[in-house]
Amino acid sequence: MLKVPQHQVAGHEAGIGKLGPLVDESGRFYKPLQGDERGASEVAFYTSLSTNSGIPEHIQRFFPTFYGTQLVEASDGSGLLPHLVLEDLALGRVNPSIMDIKIGSRTWAPEASEKYIQKCLKKDRESSSLSLGFRISGLQIYRSKELGLWKPGKKAAQKLSREEVKLVLRRFVSSNTLNDLDSRPDCAFASTVYGGSTGILSQLLELKAWFEDQTIFHLYSCSILVIFEKELALKGKNPGAQIKLIDFAHVYEGRGVIDHNFLGGLCSLIKFISEILTAPNECGIEVSAKADHKNLTADNGVVADHKNLTDSDNGVVAIQKNLTTSDNGVVADQKNLTVSDNGVLADQKNLTVSDDNCVVADQNGVS
Amino acid sequence: MLKVPQHQVAGHEAGIGKLGPLVDESGRFYKPLQGDERGASEVAFYTSLSTNSGIPEHIQRFFPTFYGTQLVEASDGSGLLPHLVLEDLALGRVNPSIMDIKIGSRTWAPEASEKYIQKCLKKDRESSSLSLGFRISGLQIYRSKELGLWKPGKKAAQKLSREEVKLVLRRFVSSNTLNDLDSRPDCAFASTVYGGSTGILSQLLELKAWFEDQTIFHLYSCSILVIFEKELALKGKNPGAQIKLIDFAHVYEGRGVIDHNFLGGLCSLIKFISEILTAPNECGIEVSAKADHKNLTADNGVVADHKNLTDSDNGVVAIQKNLTTSDNGVVADQKNLTVSDNGVLADQKNLTVSDDNCVVADQNGVS
Repeated sequence: MLKVPQHQVAGHEAGIGKLGPLVDESGRFYKPLQGDERGASEVAFYTSLSTNSGIPEHIQRFFPTFYGTQLVEASDGSGLLPHLVLEDLALGRVNPSIMDIKIGSRTWAPEASEKYIQKCLKKDRESSSLSLGFRISGLQIYRSKELGLWKPGKKAAQKLSREEVKLVLRRFVSSNTLNDLDSRPDCAFASTVYGGSTGILSQLLELKAWFEDQTIFHLYSCSILVIFEKELALKGKNPGAQIKLIDFAHVYEGRGVIDHNFLGGLCSLIKFISEILTAPNECGIEVSAKADHKNLTADNGVVADHKNLTDSDNGVVAIQKNLTTSDNGVVADQKNLTVSDNGVLADQKNLTVSDDNCVVADQNGVS
Repeated sequence: MLKVPQHQVAGHEAGIGKLGPLVDESGRFYKPLQGDERGASEVAFYTSLSTNSGIPEHIQRFFPTFYGTQLVEASDGSGLLPHLVLEDLALGRVNPSIMDIKIGSRTWAPEASEKYIQKCLKKDRESSSLSLGFRISGLQIYRSKELGLWKPGKKAAQKLSREEVKLVLRRFVSSNTLNDLDSRPDCAFASTVYGGSTGILSQLLELKAWFEDQTIFHLYSCSILVIFEKELALKGKNPGAQIKLIDFAHVYEGRGVIDHNFLGGLCSLIKFISEILTAPNECGIEVSAKADHKNLTADNGVVADHKNLTDSDNGVVAIQKNLTTSDNGVVADQKNLTVSDNGVLADQKNLTVSDDNCVVADQNGVS
């Protein structure tokens, strides 16, 4: 008996009159073949994956198991349609927290049609893809038995700003996940989910090493699915943190070149996850730009710099901003100002961050 | 006494009525400030670089020394103009071989103007930037006292295809560099220039490690200059292989995000250089696509794959091509077919490559 999957966070959803994936009770996931070249391309990719031993075993595990294609009754009632038969990644998970992260600052191949390129480019520019090298395509975060899941709409997820994405990556492994984005995530499960020898970071690093070398495939618009079970973590058990690569409708041959687009985005995600592990308490730091600015006019090298830069009101601003804070109150560069071990920051001494709530209450004169 | 630099390979060149950089005899390089925000932005970057200790010392060495700005008589005779005063990177070098490699599949920042973005996007798509993650902006290769330099026009350099770029990276460290691109480079100096603990690869890897971590700057349209002296290599001396980062007119603040665009392109370049060191004899291999195809229909896993893939004539082709050869006779995926250690290639046994001239004379039936 096929049914609509319970834990889908991105992609087309099945429903009345809607074509979407289905699952059965034996752990198989049925993804309807997209009618155009995308369907054929994804079949080709999975076929190649299962017959082509070019991918080492420790990397194969990051791909869903493929069971061929099968004609099944489509979810939209349109009759028998060919489906990809894949491993159901949510199988056996009761209340999984899931993020679908589309990797790459560019979701289109140079070989794609002009129309498709323009469509993707627009989306990449409107989402965080261009700036971060990835975007969150969908997510659900399990909160508690009482509160259930926090599952923002797909469109909302994709429109997350760079700072919101950083916050979501923290909320994902926090115990205090409320409904809004204003809460300060405690990152209580960061070390058990992201950290450790079998955690998410470790898996991402394995994938990275492969992408630095592999020139077989270029994966456009492909996602990394991140899954774990908070309830297990709460019980002190292994939360089953796992990454899987999904969505291969836009795979192209590598032709001797690494997938630098995927790799760049992956490294960006890795950096964010690493930072959470290094400084789990530095979430959503709020600093008054004005106060910060004042501190920077103290007697250190950065100031001289700042002075020089105010001579111009154009390109210089980029640099200048680097030294102060961003306009939305969440301080992107705070990281640089506080945890950098490379000496940017004489300024550090001027800043006091209260670790428990991550808010800099008052910067003026605090030493 | 200021004069036109002898070894400029990219950028605006000074000349009668032309504004370009100048050098003096003390080893300083004078780069005219671009009138618009680019000039201000580059001054801001260099100023920040020299006063901001955020960049570790072992990375500082990859940037040209900055001596401030100075009004000097412009090369186009237009009178006194402000110039950036930088270290002359060619100082003390007699016949340097130089490549200017513009890093990043994207040369524009998300924050740039729409007009500028469209201009850059077009160039990125027409050059190898999009596919390789970098493009060669200019180069000169020293051949011999008699033949002097091989210095293709800047436009020609920027239009190099992916295969030609690979070839140029080999020619750059070869002793048999003729005027055309058909020659088979011997990569005689690969190990002394690209290899070794102080060679180009080692320097690129240091830079990579920094880019995996630094979130201070995003460098768009920035180049890595690769320099060495073949005459020294010929004499068995240290050829002074060195990389330098140049061109910072499009630097933006990192705002807590790594420069995934630069990093991706850098990793792609690193992969190419690594391959040359691993297999210096595999230059410009030519294989008949037909013969190759025949070999692939032998009894191995790849074949089954190939058969499956011919069911469709669209997206599947990408995968299919991966298994055969590209249309231009230079085999992009040959690499995968011959040196891959991950088992793609049962097929390897079907291929015979004559190492001395890198041509597969006849593949049919050769074992």
